[in-house]
Amino acid sequence: MRLNTMQTRSLTAWRPAGLAATLLALTLTQHPPALADEGMWLYNAPPTRILAEKHGFTPTAAWLERVRRSSVRFNSGGSGSLVSEDGLVLSNHHVGADALQKFGDARHDYLKTGFYARTRAEEKKCHDLELNVLMGIEDVTARVNAAVTAAMTPEEAAAARRAVMAKIEKEAAEQSGLRCDVVTLYQGGQYHLYRYHRYTDVRLVFAPEQQIAFFGGDPDNFEYPRFNLDICLFRAYENGKPVKVEHYLPWAGAGVREGDLVFVSGHPGNTSRQLTMAELEYLRDTRFPYVLQRLHRLEVLLSSWSERSQENGRRARDLLFGVQNGRKARTGMLNGLLDPELIKAKQAQENRLRTAAASLPEGQAISAAWNQVAQAQQAIARLNLDHLLLEQAHGIGGTHFGIARTLLRAADERDKPNGERLREFRDSNRTSLELGLFSEEPLYDDLETLLLSDGLVWLAEKKGLGDPLVQTILAGQSPRQRAATLVAGTRVKSVAFRRTLYATNAAGIQAAGDPMLELARLVDTQARSVRKAIETQEELKRQAYGRIAAARFAVEGTNSFPDATFTLRLAFGTVSGYPSGTDRIPFQTTYAGLYERAAQHEYQPPFDLPARWLERKKRLDLTTPFNFVCTADIIGGNSGSPVVNRQGEFVGIIFDGNIESLVLDFSYTDQQARAVSVNSQAILEALRKVYDARELVAELTGKRR
Amino acid sequence: MRLNTMQTRSLTAWRPAGLAATLLALTLTQHPPALADEGMWLYNAPPTRILAEKHGFTPTAAWLERVRRSSVRFNSGGSGSLVSEDGLVLSNHHVGADALQKFGDARHDYLKTGFYARTRAEEKKCHDLELNVLMGIEDVTARVNAAVTAAMTPEEAAAARRAVMAKIEKEAAEQSGLRCDVVTLYQGGQYHLYRYHRYTDVRLVFAPEQQIAFFGGDPDNFEYPRFNLDICLFRAYENGKPVKVEHYLPWAGAGVREGDLVFVSGHPGNTSRQLTMAELEYLRDTRFPYVLQRLHRLEVLLSSWSERSQENGRRARDLLFGVQNGRKARTGMLNGLLDPELIKAKQAQENRLRTAAASLPEGQAISAAWNQVAQAQQAIARLNLDHLLLEQAHGIGGTHFGIARTLLRAADERDKPNGERLREFRDSNRTSLELGLFSEEPLYDDLETLLLSDGLVWLAEKKGLGDPLVQTILAGQSPRQRAATLVAGTRVKSVAFRRTLYATNAAGIQAAGDPMLELARLVDTQARSVRKAIETQEELKRQAYGRIAAARFAVEGTNSFPDATFTLRLAFGTVSGYPSGTDRIPFQTTYAGLYERAAQHEYQPPFDLPARWLERKKRLDLTTPFNFVCTADIIGGNSGSPVVNRQGEFVGIIFDGNIESLVLDFSYTDQQARAVSVNSQAILEALRKVYDARELVAELTGKRR
Repeated sequence: MRLNTMQTRSLTAWRPAGLAATLLALTLTQHPPALADEGMWLYNAPPTRILAEKHGFTPTAAWLERVRRSSVRFNSGGSGSLVSEDGLVLSNHHVGADALQKFGDARHDYLKTGFYARTRAEEKKCHDLELNVLMGIEDVTARVNAAVTAAMTPEEAAAARRAVMAKIEKEAAEQSGLRCDVVTLYQGGQYHLYRYHRYTDVRLVFAPEQQIAFFGGDPDNFEYPRFNLDICLFRAYENGKPVKVEHYLPWAGAGVREGDLVFVSGHPGNTSRQLTMAELEYLRDTRFPYVLQRLHRLEVLLSSWSERSQENGRRARDLLFGVQNGRKARTGMLNGLLDPELIKAKQAQENRLRTAAASLPEGQAISAAWNQVAQAQQAIARLNLDHLLLEQAHGIGGTHFGIARTLLRAADERDKPNGERLREFRDSNRTSLELGLFSEEPLYDDLETLLLSDGLVWLAEKKGLGDPLVQTILAGQSPRQRAATLVAGTRVKSVAFRRTLYATNAAGIQAAGDPMLELARLVDTQARSVRKAIETQEELKRQAYGRIAAARFAVEGTNSFPDATFTLRLAFGTVSGYPSGTDRIPFQTTYAGLYERAAQHEYQPPFDLPARWLERKKRLDLTTPFNFVCTADIIGGNSGSPVVNRQGEFVGIIFDGNIESLVLDFSYTDQQARAVSVNSQAILEALRKVYDARELVAELTGKRR
Repeated sequence: MRLNTMQTRSLTAWRPAGLAATLLALTLTQHPPALADEGMWLYNAPPTRILAEKHGFTPTAAWLERVRRSSVRFNSGGSGSLVSEDGLVLSNHHVGADALQKFGDARHDYLKTGFYARTRAEEKKCHDLELNVLMGIEDVTARVNAAVTAAMTPEEAAAARRAVMAKIEKEAAEQSGLRCDVVTLYQGGQYHLYRYHRYTDVRLVFAPEQQIAFFGGDPDNFEYPRFNLDICLFRAYENGKPVKVEHYLPWAGAGVREGDLVFVSGHPGNTSRQLTMAELEYLRDTRFPYVLQRLHRLEVLLSSWSERSQENGRRARDLLFGVQNGRKARTGMLNGLLDPELIKAKQAQENRLRTAAASLPEGQAISAAWNQVAQAQQAIARLNLDHLLLEQAHGIGGTHFGIARTLLRAADERDKPNGERLREFRDSNRTSLELGLFSEEPLYDDLETLLLSDGLVWLAEKKGLGDPLVQTILAGQSPRQRAATLVAGTRVKSVAFRRTLYATNAAGIQAAGDPMLELARLVDTQARSVRKAIETQEELKRQAYGRIAAARFAVEGTNSFPDATFTLRLAFGTVSGYPSGTDRIPFQTTYAGLYERAAQHEYQPPFDLPARWLERKKRLDLTTPFNFVCTADIIGGNSGSPVVNRQGEFVGIIFDGNIESLVLDFSYTDQQARAVSVNSQAILEALRKVYDARELVAELTGKRR
């Protein structure tokens, strides 16, 4: 789920990352430089030329506005869309799973049983879910860059840039009453101000059983053909009532056919297409191996703990899902980077850009930029282990610690000017911070102890048991003893305690004498220091990427799109099957295929079906299209994105990419890489015949009472 | 299974490793130096004094001979015992699993279904199982040490020691017709020649379903209370007929009672109690983290591959079991080493021995020995990554490569004098080598490719993609492509091809042009070189440990036992429950408890029961004792060891240690650490009432027709 690998079988068919067609033509002697369905386009720079030339389609301003204002960002990490005028929001089950997990207790396991609120009164308010709808974009590049002068040291430059971004956000937020974020695009080539309508009262309306949402489990994840009803419905509220929205996506009367042009409007999280070779090599040789090592370890830890009892399994379920999903995605991406053909193509691209850039008037400065990135990346490589272990708290582990640190830092940061605070404590972020901090999410001492204990072992392994900070943290105990002591002793598990401490000041925090807060304090000096040092190097990279971006625009033109940044993008693609060996994989699956696959595996997990799906099989129209694929350019974070047709109607919902699509992190290809969606017709058929959800069908199809 | 961790809860009750009582008395002020049930004793130096003093028991020579000659080593990694005069051998299911796995194909899954040969004709010959029975021990320390002189360089000394050991083994083998191994004891303090009767025609007689043998799976592994029928029966054949043995263990008329003295005669694989602090720190900081990282990775790889289909699961089952078992054991052992109390106690022991040794006549030379171990260990630490990746082939992976390398090296080694060959190619080892090389074990291209591909990624990660050898090995392909090419191309999967190449010479190997053989050749220079360099450092350690052992004997006396070496040892212990928190865990479980535990977990895997066990429940006497614990000193490798009573009768079979026993690797304790066995009565009850195995019951109880 949430996309990302490639299969070695397809390696001969590599298309290097699509830059401008002129550059592509230099390498792709076998593949003519046809216009590809490539791009995660900015809404303020949509791909109008390519759409017109390749697909004969020109979106109107009204079309763009409706699709944009129907697109929803799930701040927990995914996408969604408004699908009724009463604020109904559709996303993936695996995006909603975080909220579902937090509703559970020993007697309620909504991930397992599903959920359906037949009345508004039954809709369940999520503990800490924030949704955003993008209201407008403004280019603030000039203002951001003007704050940084050539005379500044890197530290001063980083501080100045942080300060001006905070100022812009605060001014805009005060003026508009909206959530305002300055977004760094092109790794520092541009800065845009994004204004969002923010919803913090979000209620759960419907979720199917995880077993049908994620049918086939880890084996089928990132695979196709596929048979998943990966959907979940929420409703946005304001002032205790469902919102009335101006824009939402009408449900299409029919699904999709092969060859259809479709659009995907969502929030791709992160791509690495415009990184320099130095950064790609860092990802390949250092970053991915580290992340995979940690994910393998966590997967084993959580799997074996989950197997001990059904209640353990319930408590760890969404966390384990995230770990497995991340592991499969990262494994695929690393396989991509270990392919010499990909590396050769990326190197050739960089060489061509560097050669072209050298002939520009400011060529020398631009050329130096690649070295500056490499040097900054080396510095980051040296700093990164401490950053991961201490600031990202991989070497500590558990939710209690994160809460404790937020409380500790909130007291410290509050007294500073807004522009000097850590980003998450800026005024413009207060609502989101407090939503998370005061979440009633249930926490479990046993799981917290497991994670903290494992984190401390990881810390000792990575920094060495003799490291003074490690010794201080362990306080003469074994990691397991220390974790048990800390978890048993801390009061941050109580939301009331958090509220009390949040309302106090640094002295109040100290007086509380809470062991987890004291642990956070022990770590804080070193954690802040390494964060600051990395931010300084990131500033050097921004400056360098600013010059590289300028060269890219000069050479390739500005009809381009930046790497993904978990902000709203418009992608487009063609509904299309694809070749695999001597076969061709069909563009869509049906309900009949679901039952066949379950039967092939003798209904054994993860290929078992919920009882309801076995009972209702005879009612279903088994020819209903279930999942389909298209060539749209997506990546993790796009999960839950609506797929819309030329009329701007909802025809499907993205929930995955196939294994061949994982390499889209580095390079677009439409040979085999495909985005995978649930068909809109399958959703209606299931709601009607499996879940008896007539009210929802009426609301979705606009035929409500 | 096969033992090894500890729980932090028990840490306050640490008993440091039991050396002589005089030294113990120095630390254990809270714990009086009572005689502990400690020790993995050599059969030529049994613990007669302690047995007499503590338990009032003196084993006769005849008692010792019968138990020794009824004890069986499974060279695949475990223990067993002769239990009938017709060569019936009892071991654990998880020891026999390797052989069961190799019998399987897409239509036969004996691990799942179990197996029972009702007639001799149905007994299935194992592909490559070798059993050994110890016939005699001879101390050859003087002769081994005499071959090494002070004037030799470390390289020369290592070569001289290898040569003399090979000579002793060859002479003894020619003289006796037995398998002869020189065993290094006390890390180099003594050398003993072990003569074994060797069985290579071993046939499977009976195995229950893995689901009852390993009921509770990974969650219950290394835990107690426990409910496992972890048994498997083989029969030794010679000249096509069952052997008639002079010695075997008669089945006891009753099981065990709390407080009973019992003996465990088996093959503990490896302990680290007499290692210096320098070596323990190496284990803690380098070795265990490496091994765990690899095991976590393999566990995730094999689990996710197994989940894809039932046939995948069958193919990888025993391998995955081994990985999970090793991971749980190593995690526990590392937790032990991360406990400051354990480290403090071990350090104090070393300090005391060093202080005492310094006052001996040769004190200075002895004192220098600890530094010599530390320096050699540092050198090994530098060499070890290459050794693991190349010589132990972690960076290559799969069975095909191992076969190819054996073929390549056999041709090279054959021409050398016996004493100069790599150990596994010595004349005395030829029978065992050929048994493995020509095994008809089924190999699967898909699993081989998976493992080889993962190994190559691991190699690239650990040595760096730019390493010249890595580049040569990958040959311009991605790891996945390269693995697929090699596995598809090699012919070593054919036993006939192996026989042909084994019969040829180096030129014949070269002419074969097999890609896997060529890969083995690419790696071989570097692999041999690092192996030799490590062997030189190991020689320096042997010399140093020789001096440390001499000091130990001088200070503590010789009434002692060496660290485990996967050779036959006699342990003894008391059948006894143990305290856990405020509770006391009873010494035994019953069949009733099995059904209760399954019901508690709603019969969900891994707590599901085979159909036969559900159907036959009503026939079983549910009060039958099932598993029991005792204080005997055991470790991995002891799996399958017989538990015998004072009369030398079979009362049970070791199959595990509890989680608290994992720390026995470093230090004996009887506070909570326990060995876990299947009760002899439970075996008879199951054979009678669940498996209708009347013939077997008659043979085991000596009441055969």
